[in-house]
Amino acid sequence: MSRKIRNILFIMFDQLRWDYLSCAGHKTLHTPHIDRLASKGVRFSRAYVQSPICGSSRMSFYTGRYVHSHGAQRNNFPLKVGEMTLGDHLRASGMDAFLVGKTHMEADAKGLERLGIAPDSIIGARLSECGFDVFVRDDGLWAEGPDGFYDDRRSPYNEYLKSKGYPGENPWADHANASITDDGMLASGWLTQFAQQPANIREEDSETPWLTTQCIDFLQTPGRDDRPWLCHLSYIKPHWPYIVPAPYAGMYGPDDIQDVIRDESEKRDPHPVYDAYMQTLVSTSYSREGVRDNVIPAYMALIKQCDDQMGRLFAHLEETGRMDDTLIVLTSDHGDYLGDHWLGEKNFFHEQAVKIPLIVYDPRPEADATRGTVCDALVEAIDLAPTFLEAIGAEVPSHILEGRSLMPFLHGREPEQWRDWVICEFDYSTTPMATKLGLAHRDARAFMIFDGRWKMIHFEGGFEPMLFDLETDPEEFRDRRADPECAAEIERLYEALGQWARRLSQRTAISDAEVDKLTGKSQRRGVLLGLYDGAELPEEMTVKLRARPVPDFRERTG
Amino acid sequence: MSRKIRNILFIMFDQLRWDYLSCAGHKTLHTPHIDRLASKGVRFSRAYVQSPICGSSRMSFYTGRYVHSHGAQRNNFPLKVGEMTLGDHLRASGMDAFLVGKTHMEADAKGLERLGIAPDSIIGARLSECGFDVFVRDDGLWAEGPDGFYDDRRSPYNEYLKSKGYPGENPWADHANASITDDGMLASGWLTQFAQQPANIREEDSETPWLTTQCIDFLQTPGRDDRPWLCHLSYIKPHWPYIVPAPYAGMYGPDDIQDVIRDESEKRDPHPVYDAYMQTLVSTSYSREGVRDNVIPAYMALIKQCDDQMGRLFAHLEETGRMDDTLIVLTSDHGDYLGDHWLGEKNFFHEQAVKIPLIVYDPRPEADATRGTVCDALVEAIDLAPTFLEAIGAEVPSHILEGRSLMPFLHGREPEQWRDWVICEFDYSTTPMATKLGLAHRDARAFMIFDGRWKMIHFEGGFEPMLFDLETDPEEFRDRRADPECAAEIERLYEALGQWARRLSQRTAISDAEVDKLTGKSQRRGVLLGLYDGAELPEEMTVKLRARPVPDFRERTG
Repeated sequence: MSRKIRNILFIMFDQLRWDYLSCAGHKTLHTPHIDRLASKGVRFSRAYVQSPICGSSRMSFYTGRYVHSHGAQRNNFPLKVGEMTLGDHLRASGMDAFLVGKTHMEADAKGLERLGIAPDSIIGARLSECGFDVFVRDDGLWAEGPDGFYDDRRSPYNEYLKSKGYPGENPWADHANASITDDGMLASGWLTQFAQQPANIREEDSETPWLTTQCIDFLQTPGRDDRPWLCHLSYIKPHWPYIVPAPYAGMYGPDDIQDVIRDESEKRDPHPVYDAYMQTLVSTSYSREGVRDNVIPAYMALIKQCDDQMGRLFAHLEETGRMDDTLIVLTSDHGDYLGDHWLGEKNFFHEQAVKIPLIVYDPRPEADATRGTVCDALVEAIDLAPTFLEAIGAEVPSHILEGRSLMPFLHGREPEQWRDWVICEFDYSTTPMATKLGLAHRDARAFMIFDGRWKMIHFEGGFEPMLFDLETDPEEFRDRRADPECAAEIERLYEALGQWARRLSQRTAISDAEVDKLTGKSQRRGVLLGLYDGAELPEEMTVKLRARPVPDFRERTG
Repeated sequence: MSRKIRNILFIMFDQLRWDYLSCAGHKTLHTPHIDRLASKGVRFSRAYVQSPICGSSRMSFYTGRYVHSHGAQRNNFPLKVGEMTLGDHLRASGMDAFLVGKTHMEADAKGLERLGIAPDSIIGARLSECGFDVFVRDDGLWAEGPDGFYDDRRSPYNEYLKSKGYPGENPWADHANASITDDGMLASGWLTQFAQQPANIREEDSETPWLTTQCIDFLQTPGRDDRPWLCHLSYIKPHWPYIVPAPYAGMYGPDDIQDVIRDESEKRDPHPVYDAYMQTLVSTSYSREGVRDNVIPAYMALIKQCDDQMGRLFAHLEETGRMDDTLIVLTSDHGDYLGDHWLGEKNFFHEQAVKIPLIVYDPRPEADATRGTVCDALVEAIDLAPTFLEAIGAEVPSHILEGRSLMPFLHGREPEQWRDWVICEFDYSTTPMATKLGLAHRDARAFMIFDGRWKMIHFEGGFEPMLFDLETDPEEFRDRRADPECAAEIERLYEALGQWARRLSQRTAISDAEVDKLTGKSQRRGVLLGLYDGAELPEEMTVKLRARPVPDFRERTG
């Protein structure tokens, strides 16, 4: 049997922490459907995002390039119009690329206007949607405040809820992400006080089942399999607000949650940037009585619901034969601190934030040998784009993509010279931490380099770096920045960071093969330097240069 | 009198070494017209290019960005379609941008095609011409070899020569860049043996007068002054082939040339990359008897001709009043070794290659105090774009341009915190040096950092850096790379190079002011993290979140 990969299903959850799956070791949260995918594929146990924030991380997944290369440094910073995405590369090889769900992509409206590209033209729409053709886009965050909505787009999910009879202007806020308290009050899902209450919505209408249905609709669209497709199925959950409908609400309680990973020593003489993070409201809230006990069971239940929806989706794929010709990736755009290291949210560089679950299932027989294995190679989010291209037999544009194909790991081959470190970046301009530290935009940036043992975090703006030894301190409690014994490690990691920062990342308009062809080309086109009389080179090269009798035309020049 | 800058004349010579002007100290080469511009403006004595090669250097001038940012690493590597240029920025402020001469720009044809932009549309043409509207483009290198022409474009200059009756398919090669020897042979200008012979052309038809005439035609075009313009007048000369028509040919002889700047010690234990450069044909040829004596007088004569054409042009500007409302810049895209340091061509990092002449004349009274002065601040080619924008009162897009406006120096103001170092880069992939050293493309790259005293050259590919102390060794004869006393300088310069390499260079789709506006914005749009019961924030922020009586719609959701 020689199967080929015809389609790619690229599933992304949002804020799904790497260790909140039973296949990754969670003791009380059982995720049998995701585990089953892991048993049929390879689970990467050291996969890292390029930025611990939705938008920037995703732009790296979609472009196959570091944040420092694509420039979408933060959520809602546009991806500039010249950046190429997965869709560009796949379409060039005959595969369509569709979106079902979230991208957090901000279009470069000014760039489009400058180039005279109408946003509603085909190319304009793709450039505005990160290279995808949109089956449905919903970024899933329909928050509203005194200055209006966080996201000004239309929300297909809100429209769905309205079509189902959920009343009000923003049923996402009042139903999917709210609950009715015991005393009959409408309680927002933003308030962690109520995280254990069931959401004010029927389970089948909540966000995760809704999007799964959208994906099944996508798969069942007549003619869908006429052309190979990549489908980016991209869920908002288990991202906050932390609230889940019955029967998931209440499924887990305080006894089911993992021990908090934090240490009093972390608060003694902390690095100033880390200190500023610890002092934010979202961080301090996790030290408040009841918050972890409310939030984490809800977070677990949201993941349990995601897993059940994976069961539903995988059953559909099996029934329709798609399991045999579809490469499936399941991952997340970053993790969640949940109170570990005295922090909330993501946006910093401990494993809880930057390490992600990553499972890749390749249906081909070549992958049989690795099914159910765990690979501990250092892997980056940017590796998926080249993996997809290699999977469909396309050439990987190495002058654009900065990741490496994971195919060797999937097929049990030793890769040539694998990477020595991973990089993750974060731009915390526009945040309270930057304000507190009095930093200019450009200085509110940090870079993590991790070589599998040592993790260094460099901060712009004149700070010392942070340093952790994950071999002797796997929980990252001891910042060794001031330890003289570690000076050589810091020097070595700075050298590596420098090498990375100087990388060739912008020479994207000419391929490596084309560069090869230019070697010696100018000589063979008559640009010949250092000739005294022409005898220095073979006659073929200099035939037009050597002194020769004046051609007939001489007399005509006068 | 309150003059305003209405126009910008941006004059570039090609391969004009910084010290080949009498205002810069050349003893035997008198350049009174350029000197006169210097006497009316400011001469920058420490101005550096971003790359010692035409194309990459120019792309930095035109984009205001480092080569590492714009990615056009070598000649004929396309400038990617997303990069913005001077023309984009100036037009946004009501100024046109025209080209008269050379850019060495390679269009990103694939990028245009991907975006559906027709190369002959207005935007397509501008993107293909580095943002300029083309009055005339001629890159000036109509070399031909066994594989055809170096440049496949049409040559307006060759067409001009044909219209003047110069016969043959390529009169550039047979007339402007050839001579008739004493024994009646046609001798190519590529052969330095004949560099002292007069070119086989009337002086007024040679390249420099031809382009000056083009510029005067540009200035005299009816309606020219209806709108403010930038004119990029960009000469091919004094770039090789080194040959010049009478009466310039023979104007200088071996007695007029400056002493060669090279030392036997440079050949002892040279850095391997420098060694590979020294062994190229163009380098070794300068050690051959007669080559410097032939080439340098011709090079000087070409410059003398350039200076005379400047006299003609400036006279025209004065007659037409343009001297009163036009900012004039005169510079070059890099220098020429001419045998110094045992090297030919440019493409390395000694002062002969990377330092350029730079004169800026500002007609406004604010500049009166600095007329005729010399400024020794560390200046980069990328500083011109912001200088032009400030000159016309436009906002400088600091999220795109990486240079700094020179206006403080022109107006005698102390700039805020000027730069501590300049950067220059060179990609020597596709060269014989890379082949000889067995380097992969990505490793055939070098970075120079110069702080005004210490110059370090970092090479990718695992080499040691080179280091020169220009205070104690202004001629750059002593590479201090192995001197233990200099270890701290190397460390310090590597730290600076790392800071530069990590710079924020790709966040070009959102301005600094727009980033400012995003601070705290998501909170005021309802993204509120870390709330337990909502009491943590002012009521205005949480009014939609706090538990409240269920609105009327409750019963309808059931």
